[in-house]
Amino acid sequence: MTITIHGEQLIGSRAVKGGAAPFRAVNPATGEQFEPAFGAGTVEDVEQACELAAAAFDSYRNTSLEARAAFLELAAQHILDLGPQLIERAMQESGLPQARLEGERGRTVNQLRLFAKVVRDGHFLGAALDSALPERSPPRPDLRLRKIGLGPVAVFGASNFPLAFSVAGGDTASALAAGCPVVVKAHGAHPGTSELVGKAVQAAVAACGLPEGVFSMLHGDGRTIGQALVAHPAIKAVGFTGSRQGGLALVRTAAARAEPIPVYAEMSSINPLFLLPNALAQKAAQIGTGFIDSLVLGAGQFCTNPGLVIALEGAALDNFRAAAAKALQGKVGSTMLTPGIHAAFTSGVEKLGKEAGVTLVARGQCGSTVCAGQAALFETDAANFLVNPALEDEIFGSSSLIVRCASLDQFVEVAEHLDGQLTATLFLNEADRDAAQALLPVLERKAGRILVNGYPTGVEVSHAMVHGGPFPATSDSRSTSVGAGAIDRFLRPVSYQDLPSGLLPEALQEGNPLGLHRIRNGELVKA
Amino acid sequence: MTITIHGEQLIGSRAVKGGAAPFRAVNPATGEQFEPAFGAGTVEDVEQACELAAAAFDSYRNTSLEARAAFLELAAQHILDLGPQLIERAMQESGLPQARLEGERGRTVNQLRLFAKVVRDGHFLGAALDSALPERSPPRPDLRLRKIGLGPVAVFGASNFPLAFSVAGGDTASALAAGCPVVVKAHGAHPGTSELVGKAVQAAVAACGLPEGVFSMLHGDGRTIGQALVAHPAIKAVGFTGSRQGGLALVRTAAARAEPIPVYAEMSSINPLFLLPNALAQKAAQIGTGFIDSLVLGAGQFCTNPGLVIALEGAALDNFRAAAAKALQGKVGSTMLTPGIHAAFTSGVEKLGKEAGVTLVARGQCGSTVCAGQAALFETDAANFLVNPALEDEIFGSSSLIVRCASLDQFVEVAEHLDGQLTATLFLNEADRDAAQALLPVLERKAGRILVNGYPTGVEVSHAMVHGGPFPATSDSRSTSVGAGAIDRFLRPVSYQDLPSGLLPEALQEGNPLGLHRIRNGELVKA
Repeated sequence: MTITIHGEQLIGSRAVKGGAAPFRAVNPATGEQFEPAFGAGTVEDVEQACELAAAAFDSYRNTSLEARAAFLELAAQHILDLGPQLIERAMQESGLPQARLEGERGRTVNQLRLFAKVVRDGHFLGAALDSALPERSPPRPDLRLRKIGLGPVAVFGASNFPLAFSVAGGDTASALAAGCPVVVKAHGAHPGTSELVGKAVQAAVAACGLPEGVFSMLHGDGRTIGQALVAHPAIKAVGFTGSRQGGLALVRTAAARAEPIPVYAEMSSINPLFLLPNALAQKAAQIGTGFIDSLVLGAGQFCTNPGLVIALEGAALDNFRAAAAKALQGKVGSTMLTPGIHAAFTSGVEKLGKEAGVTLVARGQCGSTVCAGQAALFETDAANFLVNPALEDEIFGSSSLIVRCASLDQFVEVAEHLDGQLTATLFLNEADRDAAQALLPVLERKAGRILVNGYPTGVEVSHAMVHGGPFPATSDSRSTSVGAGAIDRFLRPVSYQDLPSGLLPEALQEGNPLGLHRIRNGELVKA
Repeated sequence: MTITIHGEQLIGSRAVKGGAAPFRAVNPATGEQFEPAFGAGTVEDVEQACELAAAAFDSYRNTSLEARAAFLELAAQHILDLGPQLIERAMQESGLPQARLEGERGRTVNQLRLFAKVVRDGHFLGAALDSALPERSPPRPDLRLRKIGLGPVAVFGASNFPLAFSVAGGDTASALAAGCPVVVKAHGAHPGTSELVGKAVQAAVAACGLPEGVFSMLHGDGRTIGQALVAHPAIKAVGFTGSRQGGLALVRTAAARAEPIPVYAEMSSINPLFLLPNALAQKAAQIGTGFIDSLVLGAGQFCTNPGLVIALEGAALDNFRAAAAKALQGKVGSTMLTPGIHAAFTSGVEKLGKEAGVTLVARGQCGSTVCAGQAALFETDAANFLVNPALEDEIFGSSSLIVRCASLDQFVEVAEHLDGQLTATLFLNEADRDAAQALLPVLERKAGRILVNGYPTGVEVSHAMVHGGPFPATSDSRSTSVGAGAIDRFLRPVSYQDLPSGLLPEALQEGNPLGLHRIRNGELVKA
């Protein structure tokens, strides 16, 4: 059964065509526009979605853990039930290949299911109980703590993960798991995909008997609808994945509100690889070809794309460079997500090639589609890198820069010089141990994830993942946007002092009816 | 043995007299100035303290949990070893009585010891391990997560807790526990107290063989030294307790940095008491006198001072009002912390008394000291309260406003109307259950701590305490500044992918050498 795409927004239980300027999805491989047109939302649509979300909050956050988990699982099932139509539409709108999108759908569904497990587990509630000590002077009251949701969350769909970081992606899943209603601003590059997924979630809300305001989805421009959404008093937090410029605009709006709110913007990272000398001498060619595979994966459109390679000058680097160049020259450029992203990539590569002291190592092959990106590898030396901040700018796509160092001390100097990153990678063997030990403390300060002998593309959705890092990788390094820990972003603690048992939330009642891990008088116990 | 107070700052291991405008501490009871003069710090002093803190960070955060805990305990012991001189000086500088300051010293020492326990326990590390799944497609890498400190933290001493929220107070203790060096901006109202405590901490740093930059303390104005401190690139987070104006100025500076940083500012709260009708009918006089005791405690200079009382009009409220008025008229105003605070209180009370629809219920007695605050109780009706935002302004000191409601629905309306609060209190009995159930979800959204049949002054330092709450109670509702959870404010997660065991931090090694609770493949386990 094929579902007709109507070009609609979802405001609570309704599907409504936005009244502002219509727009059409574009196939980046061909430049063709799709029917039907999508109506962009108005400020009134934002108002309605936010009011419904606020009205739903108390009811939704007080659903049982089981009910909330079942809702997340049903949303996942509804997305699977969309079948091949979802994959086909996402392929047409994103230019991404079928296998990648099928994998991404799997990740999307697994994220929802992981958060269902996290919800059932209840550890995120942070339940803590301190017993009354009436004999103490002064007496200690009975104190009990749990975390609750911050309130309605605005989620911005990302261009580069039309499923896994979009309408029902990681931000939405973690906010819903935390008990927060979600208002999504769908990304304009894949509105049809968004409508399909949005209706799947909307149907799950209805089937679970939840208040309609738990989920809404709007279309429109970030500068108008997006800004209005973040400025709305009902919204209490924001999840965003995209450009530094876009993220910082939302941060500014959130900070200027009468009540400032947190913004989790995942923005800009060049993900350095440090090739330590003994590992490089041992496996220069292998590392070089693996690096190129990581660089061109998904047309380089990953937040964790390896945009910087730091290595000692010499024969081993020469071998690495030769292998990388050869591998790159065999790579045919694949379709980038949008004409805008393709244009920005092209001009970014052009600009980098003209920077003083930067030389071209190799280019990939031109692709045959309209928005195919032609990969590029450049090189400079550490002295030049350290004095030109432009060499640290992220170029979204398959572009990377080798930084030649004259000494291992320069590795540390380059590392200290770097801005915050999502990832930092070390290639090493046993003989590189001392050099790695010198770099590690610096990299811990600079990055959310440190890898050894691997490539940063590929972000596992699990409990020990951190997809985050110091500014400008994100606007808030205290959390992760991927993995179980993402739920913590949308929670705040509430303490209950001397409440009669009938008024206490179930998570904090005597006898531990939910079977939670709880901190009791400072000790972690499970009933 | 009496320690001579030199009017110095502490920059790492040195004690240096600041070169900027000298100032003297003032006895708020008498208006007298103390010798010696304190030299305010310069921007160069800020620079030096921050550079030392940055240099100390990697070494300090990698001390063993035991070494860090022992340092906190030694700092506590050094503070106790200051003996009566510390209490005397704090009395002279703050106007607070001996018993209060001895109690506060106890709390200060207990906070340091609680965080020593939190550090030894290691639960704050959030250790999580996901095993490699090499057979899976795609293979899952080995992933391990722990939290590390954000970096050097700027702590602003609070006026109203010269010991427990000042140089070695809650913010300092929790930041040091998290592995973050601290640079304190001492409060200008108690510089001698600060010097004594600062030297106690400085000596503990030296005795434990820690890098000198772990702790520094500067004197000076918030607008100059404070702003320079928050703007310094080495500083990665800020802890502040004080006025809304002061807190927001730091928030703005932190947001405008090249690398924005989190600010934990605890600012403004009027701590409503909701007197539900059956409890009020039963115990009007008792609640009224207890309320006045809470209102005048410490001259009302608590963040949790009860500045708002919501009750149904009628005979029970009349009884409450009469009892409160009688109790208040017997209270002699005690010395406020500074001439500036006293002046702000006096003008705040005067302004509130002139607001339309506000009537005076009673005043306390004038005190005999220069800065004695004369307590005040006002009344208005809910309709008036809901339309005049000025009635919600915090008046720091013993001033409170009764809001008469015509119905229980108006309780909810007033609660929904309120800004974010540190606390919200319900007086209730069994017959008030339904009314309490209606208010609770609203109060959970508005406050960090909800109390039943108690008074909000008195903040327990424990695991289930939340001293925080939505804006403007704090600038960041996601945490607490009192209790074990305060350590979380200064941490961020780092994930390690496929690290050889020799490079892994001890907390994440196989065999769990630190004996931590760890999340292993999603399940909380202890080795």
